[in-house]
Amino acid sequence: MTHANDPGGAGRLMAAEIAEQPAVFERILRDGWPTVREVARVIRDREPRFVVLAARGTSDHAALYARYLIEIELGLPTGLAAPSTITAYRALPDFRGVLYVGVSQSGRSPDLVTCLSTARQRGALTLAVTNAPDSPLAAAAELHLDMLAGPERAVAATKSYTASLLTLYLLVAALRERDPLAAYGVIDAAAAAVAQPASVLLAAKRLARSDRIILTGRGYGYPTALEGALKLMETSYLAAHGFSAADLLHGPVAMVEPRSPVIVILPGGVSSELMRPVLDRLGELGAERTIVGLEREGAEAFIPLPGGVPEELSPITSIIPLQMLARELALIRGSDPDAPRGLSKVTQTL
Amino acid sequence: MTHANDPGGAGRLMAAEIAEQPAVFERILRDGWPTVREVARVIRDREPRFVVLAARGTSDHAALYARYLIEIELGLPTGLAAPSTITAYRALPDFRGVLYVGVSQSGRSPDLVTCLSTARQRGALTLAVTNAPDSPLAAAAELHLDMLAGPERAVAATKSYTASLLTLYLLVAALRERDPLAAYGVIDAAAAAVAQPASVLLAAKRLARSDRIILTGRGYGYPTALEGALKLMETSYLAAHGFSAADLLHGPVAMVEPRSPVIVILPGGVSSELMRPVLDRLGELGAERTIVGLEREGAEAFIPLPGGVPEELSPITSIIPLQMLARELALIRGSDPDAPRGLSKVTQTL
Repeated sequence: MTHANDPGGAGRLMAAEIAEQPAVFERILRDGWPTVREVARVIRDREPRFVVLAARGTSDHAALYARYLIEIELGLPTGLAAPSTITAYRALPDFRGVLYVGVSQSGRSPDLVTCLSTARQRGALTLAVTNAPDSPLAAAAELHLDMLAGPERAVAATKSYTASLLTLYLLVAALRERDPLAAYGVIDAAAAAVAQPASVLLAAKRLARSDRIILTGRGYGYPTALEGALKLMETSYLAAHGFSAADLLHGPVAMVEPRSPVIVILPGGVSSELMRPVLDRLGELGAERTIVGLEREGAEAFIPLPGGVPEELSPITSIIPLQMLARELALIRGSDPDAPRGLSKVTQTL
Repeated sequence: MTHANDPGGAGRLMAAEIAEQPAVFERILRDGWPTVREVARVIRDREPRFVVLAARGTSDHAALYARYLIEIELGLPTGLAAPSTITAYRALPDFRGVLYVGVSQSGRSPDLVTCLSTARQRGALTLAVTNAPDSPLAAAAELHLDMLAGPERAVAATKSYTASLLTLYLLVAALRERDPLAAYGVIDAAAAAVAQPASVLLAAKRLARSDRIILTGRGYGYPTALEGALKLMETSYLAAHGFSAADLLHGPVAMVEPRSPVIVILPGGVSSELMRPVLDRLGELGAERTIVGLEREGAEAFIPLPGGVPEELSPITSIIPLQMLARELALIRGSDPDAPRGLSKVTQTL
């Protein structure tokens, strides 16, 4: 079996980009912060009343993280966009008082470019967060933040996802006029996660024969459940569902039967507290629970997360073992995680 | 096999409530409209700038429908709430200028009650849309709309879902000072859908041995894809994914292989136009496509929708064949769709 440390095989690009994340975080904290502060100053001066975040795929999970941060830390009501209302149904909402943020690794999704242009014409303050400063999305927006992830060649986004999370975290910190010191902990935590493939490999072996899996978390654990599910779908072709634990209990839990594999995200803090009753319920149903978290909590399997990361930063590091898991599972199942079938790096949707 | 016309067997409650939908629509249009107009008058006077919709499970799909309607028809930026920012993380956003709408069949989700109370204290105009005028959610909100679905006893919500869609449609019509005449067409269309079980039964037989399925739509077809997937998960225990077609192409499409079952929602209008390239792509990948729509479009299987319903009303009727499909599939697979395992009628999440 080819695994994470094999430099030449399938999944080589994805392994390299997963491993690069600590260095990317360091670069963002060092080189990105001054621009983030300038952008934050412009936003503060404009006093937005409402925030809309527009994104697709992996970037949509970064947008979901940002909506938690913005509502909790800044007290601004925040929503995720449904781009088709503008691009297909030609809605022209009144965007005065709105900060409209487009998040896109490539900056080349035509629907997001249309959304940001329309929002800008209709009175919004617009910000593009991309990994491509020369992209049409960056040009369409009044403000731009470069996520500084460097070129990403594997089709499944990894370092550009966590880079966008950290960039959005810094933006919220700057909007609160805080310094970014707390965020430095993610560098070592990410390095520790990358250096611990053993529990991931064990989990991959357990899950190798599953055809479906549920990932669940709440609050700051929810974006990780969604993004982990997407990585598993696009690299291992598993029927992977990511659910907010609250939504899981509102119906989909009926799918869970004895030995159903469920990955539970327990990043600490409020999120972990909210998950404990769900963990118990899944245990009663006989699910095979894999905890991705700080403690094993009596679960059937455990992928430890490095400690020392505050809950509001935990999505940046808790996704890393799931990126590694998606890659390992793809290799075990005989596919190449660097080039999933049916996908290309830039998806053009209108 | 017990099927939709057997009055005594498993799935009896769900069959009766599916069949009741035309009568419920008639009641809403007749008895609900005057109150809807009064509520709309209060909302217009307060001139909200933004709308936030809070809901869980099936009601969250009604909220998603409303967000399309509100953005497209009213030009108001709209977002779906993440309740835990308020209930668990104690966020206190500034909700002045916001219309905050809670949608809940039971009106008894404690998290939604907390969200509406907080939003009201923080300056929002609050509206509860429930099937329970005496519920805590109705009491917590300044305004209330009764969805008039009558008692719903099957655990899987059917008539309360479409009743909430129609109520929200009427609210938007009243906010635009339009009459509700266009909506009368849904009564006959729903009756026609309920009276055509043959194509649903055929589709159920084709899908009986599948363990996973994808449902996809865009725009006004998207809530139907999500709600159809939820019905299949909670009654038939299938690993059913509902995707916006745009998000599907951003990753999950890698799961699709020859003979993978995919249900494509084609309710007409802009939504169907947006879906055509996706339909072709799925065809190239060899998926077994079942169209729920107005025309067969060359797909492998077809569940016809009754015509004569404008696109913006189509979610009210296009879900009906999927409710019937979920029920039939559950019966074929040996479970009772009236009482799915692990679920109860009111889900209490904090």
